[in-house]
Amino acid sequence: MQADDDQIPAGGGRLTWQHSAHLADGREIIYFDEAPGLNRGLARDLREGLPPVPVPGTWSPEQAVRWDPLLGEWVIIAAQRQERTFLPPPDQCPLDPSAPGRPTEVPADSYDVVVFENRFPSLRGASAVPGASHPPLPPGLDDGMSPQRSGCGRCEVVCFTSDHSASFASLTPRRVRTVMEAWAARTAALSAMDGVEQVYCFENRGEEIGVTLHHPHGQIYAFPFVTPRTRQMVAQARSYAAQAGRNLFDDLVAAEQADGARMVAANDQWTAFVPPAARWPYEVLIFPVRRVPDLAALDDAARAAFGALYLDVLRRFDRLFGTPAPYIAAWHQAPVTDAGARRDFGLHVQVFTVRRAPGKLKYLAGTESGMGVWVNDIVPETAARRLREA
Amino acid sequence: MQADDDQIPAGGGRLTWQHSAHLADGREIIYFDEAPGLNRGLARDLREGLPPVPVPGTWSPEQAVRWDPLLGEWVIIAAQRQERTFLPPPDQCPLDPSAPGRPTEVPADSYDVVVFENRFPSLRGASAVPGASHPPLPPGLDDGMSPQRSGCGRCEVVCFTSDHSASFASLTPRRVRTVMEAWAARTAALSAMDGVEQVYCFENRGEEIGVTLHHPHGQIYAFPFVTPRTRQMVAQARSYAAQAGRNLFDDLVAAEQADGARMVAANDQWTAFVPPAARWPYEVLIFPVRRVPDLAALDDAARAAFGALYLDVLRRFDRLFGTPAPYIAAWHQAPVTDAGARRDFGLHVQVFTVRRAPGKLKYLAGTESGMGVWVNDIVPETAARRLREA
Repeated sequence: MQADDDQIPAGGGRLTWQHSAHLADGREIIYFDEAPGLNRGLARDLREGLPPVPVPGTWSPEQAVRWDPLLGEWVIIAAQRQERTFLPPPDQCPLDPSAPGRPTEVPADSYDVVVFENRFPSLRGASAVPGASHPPLPPGLDDGMSPQRSGCGRCEVVCFTSDHSASFASLTPRRVRTVMEAWAARTAALSAMDGVEQVYCFENRGEEIGVTLHHPHGQIYAFPFVTPRTRQMVAQARSYAAQAGRNLFDDLVAAEQADGARMVAANDQWTAFVPPAARWPYEVLIFPVRRVPDLAALDDAARAAFGALYLDVLRRFDRLFGTPAPYIAAWHQAPVTDAGARRDFGLHVQVFTVRRAPGKLKYLAGTESGMGVWVNDIVPETAARRLREA
Repeated sequence: MQADDDQIPAGGGRLTWQHSAHLADGREIIYFDEAPGLNRGLARDLREGLPPVPVPGTWSPEQAVRWDPLLGEWVIIAAQRQERTFLPPPDQCPLDPSAPGRPTEVPADSYDVVVFENRFPSLRGASAVPGASHPPLPPGLDDGMSPQRSGCGRCEVVCFTSDHSASFASLTPRRVRTVMEAWAARTAALSAMDGVEQVYCFENRGEEIGVTLHHPHGQIYAFPFVTPRTRQMVAQARSYAAQAGRNLFDDLVAAEQADGARMVAANDQWTAFVPPAARWPYEVLIFPVRRVPDLAALDDAARAAFGALYLDVLRRFDRLFGTPAPYIAAWHQAPVTDAGARRDFGLHVQVFTVRRAPGKLKYLAGTESGMGVWVNDIVPETAARRLREA
């Protein structure tokens, strides 16, 4: 429970002050303050009886990754998540700041942006100590048709504001900058951990897609493998470079800018468009104009210009049907340790809603969940036009 | 609207009598009767004003497949589906047999199993005439970063019973046999059509996964490409054969039978188990003991033994939470034209529910929909035990 207030500036220009501490059960919490000297890391977690988190390197069959031999992919088994907090009443929100008599996941009585390890993680145990992350497995589990490994990684929660009833789209551009500094700093820190192969920052918004807490928040997963979608993109970029001698992401962005039919918004640092083969009713990809492998590699100009454009796009989603859009926002970043992939990959954020019409959702049923084939009911150029006009 | 009653037996032993006809808008309908001489194909579709379906080979931007250059996959655009029938009241069910004054999609006044072309298809226009399926595209659409093709294929509806309030799990084994004969006959017929690369029989059951019609029915898609999941399985089987010199599917089934911890049910023709790296809270794979590439290749013994085992599995799903399980049942079949893949592939049906606990569903949120990583809250051995005990 020791606190440190080492005040490391997380980004250029000292826009953000970072303080790290630990919760009562041993989990790490990191405050990203918009002013110096707030000392939020000194606030103590007063909760008693929280079971301590397992030390890194502990094996449990309920927290593992398993190899699917038919598809050639890792699947995460995380049985203890079944008991995670499920739509608590507003006065019991665990993501609010603590108040007298009501300790929450955040010990401080206020915060700007705060990141902490998820209490009900899909992955845990990644360590900054080399060799400490992956425990030896019981005999027989590491071979056969479906070898297992420890579910080693890390899952973090990112609270965007202490205001329970806000949304990302209601934040100020200044706050979006702080969130971006938190994403970039955590991407760098998690990428340096033993065994982490990919860092994924994302937001699920809306009960329609299974959100169990309404407080505006996102998540960060540090995976011990490269995810299937990322592997595919890396393979496509490699194959494209071999055939065309150019970069896939650069050429896609240039083609969309030249065509224009699917453009949604742009400024001098970012470009937002509906992808030509969009899977979702309303889906937007946002690329920085200068390609980088991950958030940590974005320069100051790109970080500064992101908020205004992203807020514009999110607010267009909310205006589409005159009601807050349930959406997923997914940051696609390069794998951590594959130098070739890092050279070719283009960081981007994908935002999509599952709402296809007022009162109607896009479900992933037999074609999508069974065969991996997406059927989109909206022509991408129509989706782009509606987003431009919203 | 001409009817023919050519009475082709669909399977061995003349268990099923097949009659083909056409609906008022030109779509094909095929009755699979459990007795001869019923002449259901003679019933006329009396509806007026149904817009005729486009002739095969008609290009429309609202009915197309587009290449996703980032993932290397085809995505289906099917804009006219937005207006499809959505949870009609029981007395307006379009899948009931027709009654005086109430014509439906099925002209006959009763049926056993009936298959017809979907009125709101994701894919259409596949033709038995060589060269007729794919129309020439307007200039410029067939190249660039995201080439398009016509959404050429076929989508069929399979009604399992004329009883609106039944479910698949409530069918008799005799009826399941008729359904299997229909699946096998349609797999063979669609596989012979020009441009069809994969045939997919499946059932979505339950509003929780987006079912828009309650009448017990499934669907058949004839795709103009090999689906992403099937491509992956084919690649895994190839790689396994190259490394191990054996068949991936055979070895997986043998390993599951030997281990036993994930077995759910078996008879002398079929084996049902929870896969070792299950993605879904409750998921079962059912393999025939003699590997075949597709449903049409199943022999009489396998067809005869399927019903009892499948009904047993479905009823276990319904008993898990004491309420009808929302589920997807997906028949994984070999690609149509790839001889190597057909030699290696192992037909199986995958059944899974999205219910993870009473009142709680598994949602595909940021990890699944964004990264293709599945997080399963139930340890597969626990899921298998609960299904055995149900």
